[in-house]
Amino acid sequence: MEKRVTVLAGDGIGKEVTDAAVVVLEAVAKKYGHMFRFDHQLVGGAAVDAKNNPLPEETVASCEASDAILLGAVGGPKWDHNPPALRAEQGLLRLRKQFDLFANLRPVKAVSTLIQSSPLKEDIAKDVDMMIVRELTGGVYFGTPSLYNDEEAVDTMPYSRPEIERIVDKAFEIAMKRNKRITSVDKANVLATSRLWRQIVDEKKAQYPEVEVRHQLVDSVAMSIITSPKDFDVILTENMFGDILSDEASVITGSLGLLPSASIRSDGFGMYEPVHGTAPEIAGQNIANPAAAILSAAMMLTYSFDMLEEAQAIEDAVYGTFEDGYFTGDLTKDQPLGTKEWTEKVLQRL
Amino acid sequence: MEKRVTVLAGDGIGKEVTDAAVVVLEAVAKKYGHMFRFDHQLVGGAAVDAKNNPLPEETVASCEASDAILLGAVGGPKWDHNPPALRAEQGLLRLRKQFDLFANLRPVKAVSTLIQSSPLKEDIAKDVDMMIVRELTGGVYFGTPSLYNDEEAVDTMPYSRPEIERIVDKAFEIAMKRNKRITSVDKANVLATSRLWRQIVDEKKAQYPEVEVRHQLVDSVAMSIITSPKDFDVILTENMFGDILSDEASVITGSLGLLPSASIRSDGFGMYEPVHGTAPEIAGQNIANPAAAILSAAMMLTYSFDMLEEAQAIEDAVYGTFEDGYFTGDLTKDQPLGTKEWTEKVLQRL
Ligand SMILES: CC(C)[C@H](C(=O)O)[C@@H](O)C(=O)O
Ligand SMILES: CC(C)[C@H](C(=O)O)[C@@H](O)C(=O)O
Repeated sequence: MEKRVTVLAGDGIGKEVTDAAVVVLEAVAKKYGHMFRFDHQLVGGAAVDAKNNPLPEETVASCEASDAILLGAVGGPKWDHNPPALRAEQGLLRLRKQFDLFANLRPVKAVSTLIQSSPLKEDIAKDVDMMIVRELTGGVYFGTPSLYNDEEAVDTMPYSRPEIERIVDKAFEIAMKRNKRITSVDKANVLATSRLWRQIVDEKKAQYPEVEVRHQLVDSVAMSIITSPKDFDVILTENMFGDILSDEASVITGSLGLLPSASIRSDGFGMYEPVHGTAPEIAGQNIANPAAAILSAAMMLTYSFDMLEEAQAIEDAVYGTFEDGYFTGDLTKDQPLGTKEWTEKVLQRL
Repeated sequence: MEKRVTVLAGDGIGKEVTDAAVVVLEAVAKKYGHMFRFDHQLVGGAAVDAKNNPLPEETVASCEASDAILLGAVGGPKWDHNPPALRAEQGLLRLRKQFDLFANLRPVKAVSTLIQSSPLKEDIAKDVDMMIVRELTGGVYFGTPSLYNDEEAVDTMPYSRPEIERIVDKAFEIAMKRNKRITSVDKANVLATSRLWRQIVDEKKAQYPEVEVRHQLVDSVAMSIITSPKDFDVILTENMFGDILSDEASVITGSLGLLPSASIRSDGFGMYEPVHGTAPEIAGQNIANPAAAILSAAMMLTYSFDMLEEAQAIEDAVYGTFEDGYFTGDLTKDQPLGTKEWTEKVLQRL
């Protein structure tokens, strides 16, 4: 198969980790007889610096002509004091909205060889395997009015039925391929949007009698994610709650450096990026952990290209490399490998 | 001193735990020569059942005539399907708003004798001592429009300068009595209200040069609370973020049954309640842990009555009782004491 991928390295360590993911994708292409064409474009702070626009037109045009986007990371203190429209993160938010990437999927899976670095006790953290399904293009992130002056500020959190229905559908689809359990997060005792959310989840449930659905208040989920993370299979949540809960859940595995994400729409197009940030303090030193970016590339193969065997091969190579005892500096003090050297070990396993 | 206290037992285990707190307050009054007059009134589900109103007029009148409110807990599945205005929690939300209880204080302090029940590793959880200062009467909890129909729903998150200023002031006051460090939580890369929040925190900071202030995004705080809880002294947050983060932080100590809270306004009037819920499944069995309610009574002495020595006496008695090896059933399987029997041990230490 031939596929076009726009690579948006972004800022900080974004370049190093996407470089690693591209090398791995090229190895997969060679092995399985595919052809991936990569087009590198600017986004985030790098794009603000070069074009005074966190999402330049050329970038949008390239993404439109592609089958998927591979993103590194955006942001950094350098752009934090810019006016809102010229902040690095604006590139990310606009990409999500412009390409209608409404479903953000964040798997959180404990890796036995790394579990000792979890802040949680080992018996609580081990065997955790959840998928957070976060609505990504609605809610308070994009609602209007959003206004701010010296005396007052307002944000608006709207949700329409179609916006909720499509993410709920996606969660049920994913649950059917997993353990058929959904925890739907809301704050129905306070928020109107949560009441509509709960109603639509209940309606869909009728179409999927096999799936067990639990409604749980967001504050209560924030506790259970830490006290009994194994209880979760699919966590379904609106945008803002998903932002908070997915970062909270990311600590379970003991390393942010491991977590991939996908942001997809219904036709298969998607954007794939590691959950970690730009880590400007270590950028350019060949020490960043590329595992999350490489696993994000595997999610691209699964969700956008339907190359399931190839995706599995990447995952096996990544986890196998950890099992072999090879780690980057975020995971070990004892003879860590550099970004490129660690990626080399993954390639050897492919 | 003579003080009037309205006791709102509420639902579930609310009655048992407030009974315990009242007994302890009476013992303190006797020992220190005070007189506390208690007036018991209905709130929450109990008030819906009796008066079809989660916050009846008599209750409001009693609170108005009091110096402080002691609350048990409200809510339960029985009222969850009522129309919003007749839900149990509505009693709580209306109390907060009606009495302008804008500052919610939730201390999270690890107790060494109980740390082994924390889901976190002991070296991470031990010595944690933070105070969460949550804005309680603004934001998305009370913003209009709030609307919901079959096709769409909207919530509104407004904050005015005075609403933010007073809670920020409170956080600085509290920080000055503690370790002089504030982490101010926001989502300034997305929300307009967060930008005003951050601006006002920076303005106040100029008045308190001794206090170290860090701005941290809510998603990042959700991680750090678990990975490095000892880094926090005062956490300052708006209403919704505070709801989520304070419940998240509550898991650190290993027992929700231990955590008190205060909801106060500037003139000293306040409402004091345990963080835990109504636990209807164990109500009426004399097995609930009354420690959080008793510690909430101690917060009442501190924040509403300025009886610092008396408050310290209660805290010492509660922690001393744990050190003596006496626990309720939520904390031990090994010969637990009942609610009354455990309270008796606390009284013996007073
Ligand atoms: C950078 C920021 C706007 C973004 C978000 O809040 O969605 C990030 O935290 C994330 O979760 O991808
Ligand atoms: C019961 C509910 C409305 C309340 C809140 O969200 O404030 C509770 O969760 C709390 O934190 O006191």
